[in-house]
Amino acid sequence: MSLIVQKYGGSSVADAESIKRVAKRIVEARKAGNDVVVAVSAMGDTTDDLLDLAHEVAPIPAPRELDMLLTSGERISMALLAMAIKSQGYDARSFTGSQAGMITDATHGAARIVEVTPVRLREALDEGAIVIVAGFQGFSRDTRDITTLGRGGSDTTAVALAAALEADVCEIYTDVDGIFTSDPRVVPNAKKIARITSEEMLELAASGAKVLHIRAVEYARRHKVKLHVRSSFTHDEGTIVYDPAWAEGEENMEEAIIAGVATDLSEAKITVVGVPDVPGVAAKIFTTVAKTNANVDMIVQNVSAATTGRTDISFTLPKGEGERALTALSNEKASLGFEGLQYDDQIGKLSLVGNAMRSNAGVSARLFEALFEAGINIEMISTSEIRISVVTRADTVSAAARAVHTAFELDGDAEAVVHGGTGR
Amino acid sequence: MSLIVQKYGGSSVADAESIKRVAKRIVEARKAGNDVVVAVSAMGDTTDDLLDLAHEVAPIPAPRELDMLLTSGERISMALLAMAIKSQGYDARSFTGSQAGMITDATHGAARIVEVTPVRLREALDEGAIVIVAGFQGFSRDTRDITTLGRGGSDTTAVALAAALEADVCEIYTDVDGIFTSDPRVVPNAKKIARITSEEMLELAASGAKVLHIRAVEYARRHKVKLHVRSSFTHDEGTIVYDPAWAEGEENMEEAIIAGVATDLSEAKITVVGVPDVPGVAAKIFTTVAKTNANVDMIVQNVSAATTGRTDISFTLPKGEGERALTALSNEKASLGFEGLQYDDQIGKLSLVGNAMRSNAGVSARLFEALFEAGINIEMISTSEIRISVVTRADTVSAAARAVHTAFELDGDAEAVVHGGTGR
Repeated sequence: MSLIVQKYGGSSVADAESIKRVAKRIVEARKAGNDVVVAVSAMGDTTDDLLDLAHEVAPIPAPRELDMLLTSGERISMALLAMAIKSQGYDARSFTGSQAGMITDATHGAARIVEVTPVRLREALDEGAIVIVAGFQGFSRDTRDITTLGRGGSDTTAVALAAALEADVCEIYTDVDGIFTSDPRVVPNAKKIARITSEEMLELAASGAKVLHIRAVEYARRHKVKLHVRSSFTHDEGTIVYDPAWAEGEENMEEAIIAGVATDLSEAKITVVGVPDVPGVAAKIFTTVAKTNANVDMIVQNVSAATTGRTDISFTLPKGEGERALTALSNEKASLGFEGLQYDDQIGKLSLVGNAMRSNAGVSARLFEALFEAGINIEMISTSEIRISVVTRADTVSAAARAVHTAFELDGDAEAVVHGGTGR
Repeated sequence: MSLIVQKYGGSSVADAESIKRVAKRIVEARKAGNDVVVAVSAMGDTTDDLLDLAHEVAPIPAPRELDMLLTSGERISMALLAMAIKSQGYDARSFTGSQAGMITDATHGAARIVEVTPVRLREALDEGAIVIVAGFQGFSRDTRDITTLGRGGSDTTAVALAAALEADVCEIYTDVDGIFTSDPRVVPNAKKIARITSEEMLELAASGAKVLHIRAVEYARRHKVKLHVRSSFTHDEGTIVYDPAWAEGEENMEEAIIAGVATDLSEAKITVVGVPDVPGVAAKIFTTVAKTNANVDMIVQNVSAATTGRTDISFTLPKGEGERALTALSNEKASLGFEGLQYDDQIGKLSLVGNAMRSNAGVSARLFEALFEAGINIEMISTSEIRISVVTRADTVSAAARAVHTAFELDGDAEAVVHGGTGR
């Protein structure tokens, strides 16, 4: 008998009808002879509605109380899901994060998992029940308080349960059919990827792909959990995310491939103009920026102009963090000795991800050529072992993605299908 | 320093504005130098909405999961209330029933309180925090599952906390100004009662007065908790519910009074016609009825007709239980030997409550005279030590209540004010 962990996001359980549909799907997995553990998100917009209420009663809601509030969302969806399964004739029991043994630190709103002790879940499984667990939530042993895991929380709950229970697979149900070679809204003939390594998946997620949260992928890789990302609207196979280092029999998959093309419009570029080209200045600039907690992504330093002894340094960061970084730099203008600041939020980032880059030096040349032929100007470049990212104008990034997608022969025959929104 | 337990019903916390208003009121009690513990119900219609959802996904929702579902309602209101208080500059912490040490048996939907161990509440109070507790919910140690207390649950939570913490008073906030000599919607010039014994309050509650749940009054009497029923919309004193047996300095209040007139339109009457007047038949009839779990209230047996050796037995019970009782009796018609059944759901019950009845034999005479003068026919009569109830036609019960209210000189000068609906 296999043990399957399934995760359903908020859009999959948005109303009573959806919950009944998901219940049926869970029962199918049980009927097929599997033990089934389900992590579930709050219904549809519940979390946003609760957040709105919180901000109506308190401008800055107390973090402990906010966690207490938000965790009621999953409590509702999990209880309804368990009822729906029971009324289909199968035993089911719902458990809160605390009951499921999801032990975290005490960081409200962004708790880290410390330990998973699913004693009650094992008991329920041994008694033949389907187990439903509230996603997104945990419990701090130190403070005895309820916590939440923050963004991507329900995915992480599912993966952590799969690891602790040594599940055979962790199925992440979503409103798309799997991981695609590019965002189907940008590249209509993007193809579903059958298998992808967790390393590539991490690069794709970090480059703007939104289907899987980076934290859940990291947890899965560290704890050797095989992920299967698939649609809750079809029975098609989705995308397997695996690690060739531990996935036996999957080694043959480690051929040199290009996994996909990701785009990201969420960043802005700051250019520090006329920086004195002396040792230590860059360090001072990024120390100043780091103090604002900004997540700096790409950094480019231009060649110094020999005549002036000055250079320009550009970096990208999430748009929401731009203002704080600009203010911090302005305040240090005298001590840093630069001449001026430029802010540009009309940039787009395109990333090509795949382990083919490890062995094949021609990949970057082919990328630049494809962009050149499409008439797209490259403003910044950065690379990792299995990724090349370029910054272009925001309004050219979609055309750039299509051109690159075609150049690397990723185009599929049909248009990809996208259903509804995404859960948390 | 006094310790006050306050309870706010669903209508007092129906939206963000109401929650902020209640938070302010709680802070006032804290500012006045009291330790404050608050039991709170779910917001407005939350519980009904959740019940609707449950019945959409499952015709008969599993009781364990229903409790898991419904308890999310108080989780929402208590977290919001704690946030609202904190944003007014006072420390506040919310606790679920389980965190508050509300230990119950495992009867989902109608759990009995087994023990209250408010360790965390005491810690929070010692640290200067205002404590907010989810009403209506508990935790079974045996099954480690979440339970709910059923009807009147939040009142009971408040009283149980007051008993366990040895609070000076338990304030029940509601949408009326206190306990009235009659329902102001029936008797417009009903007066607010300043003080009432718990015995009288129990009789009033059992006779149809809806402000306080009978279970909470019983718990308060047994555990010597002084109740103060008052409006959350005004700062007027409400009604004190006390027991002269333990309330020191209150003995002087035990004068012979008529506390009030209650009416009840929720019952129906069943008459078993032509019952053989032999020993043991009444016992058989009520055993048959009891097997349907019906709550029989009043019972009247007519004088036997000497010529036939047969009699009629009438009893009242909640309308919703009438059909089951009729069916059960019909099935046993042969063995019970009666001639027929009559069902009448157009009855009204009027009850006069007060300890004056103990010492003053003229009370019942005055009651019957008032009804006679108002032209109202009495169909059934039953009495307890401090209560007389009569059954009349349903459409005459309001006029009867006004006549009796006047006859016993209970009328006030002004009309009573009623705000909004009632919580759970």
